[in-house]
Amino acid sequence: MHEGSTGQSPRHPWGSPGDTARTRLHRIPENAVTDRASVHAILDDGLVAHVGIVGDASQPYVLPVGYARVDEQLLFHGSSASRLFRALSAGAPACATVTILDGMVLARSGFESSMNYRCVMVLGRCTVVEAENKVRALESISDHLLPGRWVDIRPPNAKELRATLVLSLSLEECSAKISAGDPDDLEEDLDRPVWAGVMPLMRKWGAPIAAPDLRFDLAPPKYLDGWVAKGS
Amino acid sequence: MHEGSTGQSPRHPWGSPGDTARTRLHRIPENAVTDRASVHAILDDGLVAHVGIVGDASQPYVLPVGYARVDEQLLFHGSSASRLFRALSAGAPACATVTILDGMVLARSGFESSMNYRCVMVLGRCTVVEAENKVRALESISDHLLPGRWVDIRPPNAKELRATLVLSLSLEECSAKISAGDPDDLEEDLDRPVWAGVMPLMRKWGAPIAAPDLRFDLAPPKYLDGWVAKGS
Repeated sequence: MHEGSTGQSPRHPWGSPGDTARTRLHRIPENAVTDRASVHAILDDGLVAHVGIVGDASQPYVLPVGYARVDEQLLFHGSSASRLFRALSAGAPACATVTILDGMVLARSGFESSMNYRCVMVLGRCTVVEAENKVRALESISDHLLPGRWVDIRPPNAKELRATLVLSLSLEECSAKISAGDPDDLEEDLDRPVWAGVMPLMRKWGAPIAAPDLRFDLAPPKYLDGWVAKGS
Repeated sequence: MHEGSTGQSPRHPWGSPGDTARTRLHRIPENAVTDRASVHAILDDGLVAHVGIVGDASQPYVLPVGYARVDEQLLFHGSSASRLFRALSAGAPACATVTILDGMVLARSGFESSMNYRCVMVLGRCTVVEAENKVRALESISDHLLPGRWVDIRPPNAKELRATLVLSLSLEECSAKISAGDPDDLEEDLDRPVWAGVMPLMRKWGAPIAAPDLRFDLAPPKYLDGWVAKGS
């Protein structure tokens, strides 16, 4: 989708909210997403970031991580024993990309068929979050993924905190792209008798599955009720 | 999520269907996903892959792309003018990761709270798909993203094909991980009076949005009816 790879005809470009030579859009630079509010909104709608690091022989590795955005930082957490997290905490160059797929764009030709989506790519080096900021960061990640849950559950103890690495990546250098709207067919294709338009993709909860070891007759918490979100 | 980064307590490991020293699981190697059918099923359920490449100064870049799996290959398409696609077609080491988020695991502690997901990571170098295989690959990608759509739309002409680069990445070297099931709380947390269990995440279509330039009174095609899929 970046640079047009989910549709053969990219209609919208990458913008550069934290514009540097590395994040500047090289193709189709109009319609850039340049305001912080749009970048924040995309990151706040996503649930998983795909984080890239470089291993031996210039081999990239791309791994999914849960995250939260707080102000101008992305926060991740993982195991202290994880190779990924150890490499990131040592300051390896990283890239974190969050993509929300909003729908399929059904054009009358294959070439103009594409996807609507929102995406933010962040470049930088992570720093380790420690001391009192560490628990606060874990609370932020919990609040982002399941708003309201943190107050109901047991906070981490000292042993669990030692087993957990929390990392922060600044949004200083990032770019964003939003592809939205209707199919953009050639005039000569408009008489083709086929439906064209957008099929929005949504996320929703399925039916809750209670843990087999649940000891009380408890209903799922209210904060889970009826959640349906735009984007997949 | 890879190596435990969506939950602090990773319950399931990476498996190694195309096992090499680079894809072998280093942490918690039990429960590996080692069969081809499981790898194929994950890739066939996903819609977007996150592709990593390495730029100057060992900086990784991670970009979302639509794809299809055909036999033991991942197929992508993008613009011939895309930097990403030019670098990939020149044989740069690549990583393509597909993640499907299946649900939130609500444990009684923050440490045991996590996500259920399925993920495949593929390492390798892409090859360019050309001649008669190129249109066939585009049809496969369309069939994967919108099954049944290809026969309704205009196939690409020579100019559109020149503007499109189609790449193939072998699944020979890949690893897969499935995190599924109930929360795994400590015995001492089980008396906490809070609901615990799994909230499944689903994908579904929203209401169709007809293109403003639709010239006929056409209903959205039948292949869009009632689609709800497991995973987000």
